[in-house]
Amino acid sequence: MMHTTADFEKFYYLFPQSVVLISVARNLMPAAWHTPISAKPPLYGALISPKRYTYELLRKEKGFAVNFVMHENAPLVAKLGSTSGRDIDKLTHFKIATYPAEKVTAPILSTSYAAYECEKCHLHEYGDHFLLVGRVLLIHFDQHVLHERELVDVNKVNPILYFGTDRYLTTDPDSLSIFKKN
Amino acid sequence: MMHTTADFEKFYYLFPQSVVLISVARNLMPAAWHTPISAKPPLYGALISPKRYTYELLRKEKGFAVNFVMHENAPLVAKLGSTSGRDIDKLTHFKIATYPAEKVTAPILSTSYAAYECEKCHLHEYGDHFLLVGRVLLIHFDQHVLHERELVDVNKVNPILYFGTDRYLTTDPDSLSIFKKN
Repeated sequence: MMHTTADFEKFYYLFPQSVVLISVARNLMPAAWHTPISAKPPLYGALISPKRYTYELLRKEKGFAVNFVMHENAPLVAKLGSTSGRDIDKLTHFKIATYPAEKVTAPILSTSYAAYECEKCHLHEYGDHFLLVGRVLLIHFDQHVLHERELVDVNKVNPILYFGTDRYLTTDPDSLSIFKKN
Repeated sequence: MMHTTADFEKFYYLFPQSVVLISVARNLMPAAWHTPISAKPPLYGALISPKRYTYELLRKEKGFAVNFVMHENAPLVAKLGSTSGRDIDKLTHFKIATYPAEKVTAPILSTSYAAYECEKCHLHEYGDHFLLVGRVLLIHFDQHVLHERELVDVNKVNPILYFGTDRYLTTDPDSLSIFKKN
């Protein structure tokens, strides 16, 4: 039995969303609102509130990185989401191991299992957020987490998923099923 | 040890994405590229290829619906993704139970655990896709899948996640962990 409501308070907590870490300059911000945008050219998008320090940095910088992390990083992700780069240097404060991106000015998290280096293409306002669109220039990936067909092996990666108001979880590898399109 | 590549063929299969069904007029299309866009006003977005019949319909129609479905629906989702509303009436062909949305011209899937009715606001071109942005007008939800705080109960819902090239999986409810932001 379906009910209806026009109370939108929790409208974005209806499905689990993977959390990425957007890095730019020396800062890191978790983002649950993100998606691929285009295949050719390869474009990636994330929604950034203009209240965030990351937004200020993105106005100035030419690029950024998107870091994909595991469920084990949930405590760090929660801390990164509750602090601002205006107040602290998060990399130093949380002792985060990173290495520099090659084509943009952004740190790549050493514990990420994959990351994109992106050239900033657009920063378009929609409602109370800005859609950041970047062109993927370079992909970093941990070769040990891929299976023979070069897809992520679900037995080796527990991606972090967010399900609303501080609730994090991950995938169940035993649920994997293949349904061919044809 | 991280490797790098500029081969973007599978760049969007690095993290699991929930799959929604976008319904408009009498058609349904699976979309793995989607995200909330704004809280106030409540905006929701999905990427639509101009090759899709859904794109043609969206050019004409004023609204659409976003249906959230369970992992059990993966075989149907795979079929919906491999057929076109140009060739068949998917609702009839696959015997899909739906009921009409209240504020827009779109079917709501009876087996969805939640759905948004959206007024079309934008259809913006980015690369080889169009970003469809809709204003959420009404939320449908199955009250039995919510827990006491009105969030989705992970023990009652197995949301469908897509992990690339025909691989579907779901969440592991036992992995749920709470990390307070403060």
